[in-house]
Amino acid sequence: MMENFNYYNPVKIVFGKKKEKEIGSVLKEENVGSVLLIYGKGSVKRSGVYDRVIKCLKEADIKITEYGGIKSNPLVRDADLAARLAIEKGCEAVLALGGGSVMDSAKAIAAAADMNCSAWDFFTGTEITGALPVYNIVTLAATASEMNCGFVLTNEETGEKLGMGNPLLYPRISILNPQLTETVPPDYTAYSAVDILAHVLEGYLTRDTGPDLMNRFAESIIKTVMETTEVILKEPHNYDARGEFMWAATMALNGTLGKGTGGASSPNHMIEHGVSAVLDIAHGAGLAILMPAWMEWYYKKNLPQFERLSREIFGLESGEEGIKALKSWFQKIGAPVSFKDIGVGEERLEELADKALKQGECWGMDKMYPRESILEILRLAL
Amino acid sequence: MMENFNYYNPVKIVFGKKKEKEIGSVLKEENVGSVLLIYGKGSVKRSGVYDRVIKCLKEADIKITEYGGIKSNPLVRDADLAARLAIEKGCEAVLALGGGSVMDSAKAIAAAADMNCSAWDFFTGTEITGALPVYNIVTLAATASEMNCGFVLTNEETGEKLGMGNPLLYPRISILNPQLTETVPPDYTAYSAVDILAHVLEGYLTRDTGPDLMNRFAESIIKTVMETTEVILKEPHNYDARGEFMWAATMALNGTLGKGTGGASSPNHMIEHGVSAVLDIAHGAGLAILMPAWMEWYYKKNLPQFERLSREIFGLESGEEGIKALKSWFQKIGAPVSFKDIGVGEERLEELADKALKQGECWGMDKMYPRESILEILRLAL
Repeated sequence: MMENFNYYNPVKIVFGKKKEKEIGSVLKEENVGSVLLIYGKGSVKRSGVYDRVIKCLKEADIKITEYGGIKSNPLVRDADLAARLAIEKGCEAVLALGGGSVMDSAKAIAAAADMNCSAWDFFTGTEITGALPVYNIVTLAATASEMNCGFVLTNEETGEKLGMGNPLLYPRISILNPQLTETVPPDYTAYSAVDILAHVLEGYLTRDTGPDLMNRFAESIIKTVMETTEVILKEPHNYDARGEFMWAATMALNGTLGKGTGGASSPNHMIEHGVSAVLDIAHGAGLAILMPAWMEWYYKKNLPQFERLSREIFGLESGEEGIKALKSWFQKIGAPVSFKDIGVGEERLEELADKALKQGECWGMDKMYPRESILEILRLAL
Repeated sequence: MMENFNYYNPVKIVFGKKKEKEIGSVLKEENVGSVLLIYGKGSVKRSGVYDRVIKCLKEADIKITEYGGIKSNPLVRDADLAARLAIEKGCEAVLALGGGSVMDSAKAIAAAADMNCSAWDFFTGTEITGALPVYNIVTLAATASEMNCGFVLTNEETGEKLGMGNPLLYPRISILNPQLTETVPPDYTAYSAVDILAHVLEGYLTRDTGPDLMNRFAESIIKTVMETTEVILKEPHNYDARGEFMWAATMALNGTLGKGTGGASSPNHMIEHGVSAVLDIAHGAGLAILMPAWMEWYYKKNLPQFERLSREIFGLESGEEGIKALKSWFQKIGAPVSFKDIGVGEERLEELADKALKQGECWGMDKMYPRESILEILRLAL
């Protein structure tokens, strides 16, 4: 079945070596005179990219206001403090220097600053009606936040980690230089690979069989990510592998996949956001633990797609064999594949299920995954 | 090698059954009160879609000015007359109802009307600095003009058929309803398939081997187009096949393919535009004649990609076998594969080569394909 769909993605991508050095001229051309520069917990300073970006912005006479320290599961509190700062200093745009958490925060900050409200309001009924323009310099390839209009935030007070999207939040321009990802440590490269595969596989495995073009695009990304991950782990300075990995990450969640397909959902992301709202683990690590369990629980409900995965990616026959092969690959690249691997026992599962349910309500998924099903999946991940 | 690249495509796609009925509300939402409606030589009237569109526009109180009769190799003269009409009637936008020729014309008209000049000026030094917004209702899937910023025009006076592009010419919104392509006759379905394959294969076969993701996307489109063409020719009312075919056509030339690849060129389109400027044949028919000849002439210069094509698409080994298989497939779907098939002899080749060279100059390709090489390729197509 070819379902009806809409497609729209106005993000400009500037991809290549040393491209972060163009940020000054990029912002100048966009008539941005004053920018809120946000970043994470210091890796951009250690790698030197922070200094280069500051230098470029100064050379272009762009006024800089800084907000650093964004967490890897980014917090509402940081978004709100940064938005307030942007208002006070009259920033005309938000520039994210970092990975998914920083880029996600940029969107929340851009809307909260423009609308003079808390970023959490957007999860409690306030519609996003405006946002400052967002620019990104990407230092970690995984979430595709650089080319979509979604974001995820964690509310420390309520213990919730929730996601949403709005077309007003598409970044204006994202600069992708694969060289900047060279400082990502091997474990986070593996988690990123799992996250990208999850973005592709959730749609691929939950939808109806057709259309074939979308299946083939999905398989193209899966193969490329698996191949380039192995190269990067062996040769961290292989630019071509990092480049393909980075663009594959963007294509995995920029709206290209899944056009015309029906019925797709994201149960693993739903449950994982619940998990990483409670346990302080990397999103990709959580997915590596959950996905094989979910696949085992789910595969008979959509056998043709699981058999296709087995055949096209692993050259195997049964759906079950493909699940095992994927799990082995996660282990091969150094990702955890069970709660045991990260020292979490059965006593935490009820709490994790509650948080996942909350995430599901936010996405409208609760009915498809009642608490009992979530608990079954979590148990399979022990 | 992963080369640097930019990516930007702001076109909104509305895809699905009966979606042309939304044109009134679409234009209303865009604050368009008066539109120049352009179309071809009458197939839209015979099929009934013209009446439906007029009805929708009237119900939305949108003022309609019409210009029909756009040729399948669209003419500068028509673009200029239509642009003048748009200026006289104060049209705020151009709405194309048709296939590639009508959508290409819409871009030229939109710029010429906004800049109050001739569309041919854009090929003789005038830079495009503005254009009316362009909207499309697509009735033939082939050129991807609905989602790129390029156009091709023929100048009857000089006998030239030239192409160009400008980011200001991206359509605002394109409506794609696969049902509207049901009136395309089988031969034009075949020519469209060849055109789409050419868009993919020219880049695929002329570039360096990597990156793999782009090779895989290209192969995904090739496989889908070949499969769905055969289904459509057997079952003209198969909506799913038409839908996949249509979206594959758009993806084949909307800027997705070839990101990060280097060295690609379009020799077949260059030569074919020369050919169809002289012989009044369908663009896709011309490509079906030229491509196997060009492939034979060229394949040893880039053997790895030809071997890859053989292997991935046809399950064959040598580059030569793949070329033969593609040529056979063109014959199978009813496309001509030699000048003989369309009754053209050796005496026309010199003239065709001259026109191709002119096209090559416009694209900056003359040095790669001197007259002698073009003649060799044309002779192989006899």
